[in-house]
Amino acid sequence: MVCGVANEKGEWLAKLTIPTKHPQETMPEIIAFFEEQQIDSLGIGSFGPLDLVKGSSTYGSLASTPKKGWPGYSLLGAFAHLNIPISITTDVNGAALAEAAVGAAKGLDSCVYITVGTGIGAGAVVNGTILEGLSHPEMGHIPVVRHKDDRYEGNCPYHGDCLEGLAAGPAIQGRWGKAGVELAEVSEVWEMEAYYLAQAIATYTYVLSPKRVILGGGVMKQRHLYPLIRQALATQINGYVKIGDLEEYVVPPGLGDDAGLTGAVLLAKQALVQKGLKSTNL
Amino acid sequence: MVCGVANEKGEWLAKLTIPTKHPQETMPEIIAFFEEQQIDSLGIGSFGPLDLVKGSSTYGSLASTPKKGWPGYSLLGAFAHLNIPISITTDVNGAALAEAAVGAAKGLDSCVYITVGTGIGAGAVVNGTILEGLSHPEMGHIPVVRHKDDRYEGNCPYHGDCLEGLAAGPAIQGRWGKAGVELAEVSEVWEMEAYYLAQAIATYTYVLSPKRVILGGGVMKQRHLYPLIRQALATQINGYVKIGDLEEYVVPPGLGDDAGLTGAVLLAKQALVQKGLKSTNL
Ligand SMILES: Nc1ncnc2c1ncn2[C@@H]1O[C@H](COP(=O)(O)OP(=O)(O)O)[C@@H](O)[C@H]1O
Ligand SMILES: Nc1ncnc2c1ncn2[C@@H]1O[C@H](COP(=O)(O)OP(=O)(O)O)[C@@H](O)[C@H]1O
Ligand SMILES: [Zn+2]
Ligand SMILES: [Zn+2]
Repeated sequence: MVCGVANEKGEWLAKLTIPTKHPQETMPEIIAFFEEQQIDSLGIGSFGPLDLVKGSSTYGSLASTPKKGWPGYSLLGAFAHLNIPISITTDVNGAALAEAAVGAAKGLDSCVYITVGTGIGAGAVVNGTILEGLSHPEMGHIPVVRHKDDRYEGNCPYHGDCLEGLAAGPAIQGRWGKAGVELAEVSEVWEMEAYYLAQAIATYTYVLSPKRVILGGGVMKQRHLYPLIRQALATQINGYVKIGDLEEYVVPPGLGDDAGLTGAVLLAKQALVQKGLKSTNL
Repeated sequence: MVCGVANEKGEWLAKLTIPTKHPQETMPEIIAFFEEQQIDSLGIGSFGPLDLVKGSSTYGSLASTPKKGWPGYSLLGAFAHLNIPISITTDVNGAALAEAAVGAAKGLDSCVYITVGTGIGAGAVVNGTILEGLSHPEMGHIPVVRHKDDRYEGNCPYHGDCLEGLAAGPAIQGRWGKAGVELAEVSEVWEMEAYYLAQAIATYTYVLSPKRVILGGGVMKQRHLYPLIRQALATQINGYVKIGDLEEYVVPPGLGDDAGLTGAVLLAKQALVQKGLKSTNL
């Protein structure tokens, strides 16, 4: 987990990076860090799934996750004693916010940020605001049409062959018997991967009409995927929606590994602004 | 086309319903109607596809549509001489806005409105605002996984077997050889239709996390589709996201045929408010 403290200008005052172990081990260290720094507000961009149902008694808690000790853990509860405004969303929503503010979608009021790694997740900014509704999106689990040559059954415990089940890093490994990094030269691997990721982008495009789509995560270190995805996307959309230059539409992250932390700081700022609005209303 | 004039309280002062023929025939009548009524602002919820790209020189024009004479026609241009604030979006976005304000999603700040008719279209409200981005969503054209027993090739001119190509009214007719209304008693028809519509709702749920999904349009006159869709949706989501009571989540429209007109009036109101904000900013 990456933690940071910034001043109003966005300059970093302190940073802390620690591995995500059992919460009883990891969280005391993080809490102590923020206590010491005497922060005014806190932004959290967390791995999911999270309960972000407004009015839920477990709002800000982690839901069922394979990460040991975390299911049911309340991130909001852990920082409640700091008595400061806290804004929490998913890591990918935070990254989307950061990319729209100062990254690859700078100046745009909408974008989708997709990470293709151990799982597939995506967050979005719509009309300048993070996309949430009933709870947070779970864009990695959309159904997808299989590639004609794909015989892999898929590994999502809930859906089998959803997008994540067919196209995240472990699915690549499961299908081809080796990790993606060792398959760099095998063109069928990336043609199939591009087919699935393009299909996901087509779906997000039809549903959200974003102004830009940012693709990050470990699997996207295979940079040749970007042109393959753009090509497959053009074929699949088949001219139905006009999205202009695909090189501008499907892009790598502008912030790299900093997107998460930058997003969290922006969330912390928003939490302060919201508090400000509240006090003028009183 | 349905036109209406309402006062600030939302009471109807005049209505006009005319068939959508060639614009040279239809539009003069509509323009004359609004000229006579001396309206203060105008809201338009139009069939699509529309150019809603902000800053586009053809903003507010119809794009490629099979409706004769309409491709390239500028709805915004047609009313420009009225010199009043105009707000334009898709018919389904307008319906979503109306349903969220006073219909089946009243009190909720997010919903998706789907119409299943001659085509399939959907609009959404997110954070209380109509969902637009690069342009407007085209949710009817998402890719879908075929039903295992479906041999129909699909009839979308762009994608063949996208959602609309497999599940709109003409696809039902194309697959089974008869219009939906004549197939009411044939259970395979509706089991397959429910499978596709549930898949679409699952996708919209994963991408948007809406608080409610409203299904309308001619095909949904088969009321037994609602329980079939809810059942298929539960099977497909398989517990991955918690959406509570499906009877509350997947519902028929609250406003019926009035959704479009009500949405347009709300858009007209918004256009006035925006104008008001602008003048206080000056
Ligand atoms: N250079 C690479 N090429 C292809 N796949 C990679 C590469 N680096 C990491 N991966 C894959 O990405 C996944 C890890 O994704 P990452 O984004 O680094 O972490 P996480 O998703 O857990 O946050 C693994 O499945 C791994 O095989
Ligand atoms: N009662 C019904 N049962 C099944 N299908 C119907 C019924 N009524 C209309 N439809 C189908 O709905 C489509 C027309 O949809 P509608 O929403 O009325 O118009 P449009 O989409 O053109 O605005 C046609 O394909 C028709 O076959
Ligand atoms: Zn899944
Ligand atoms: Zn299509």
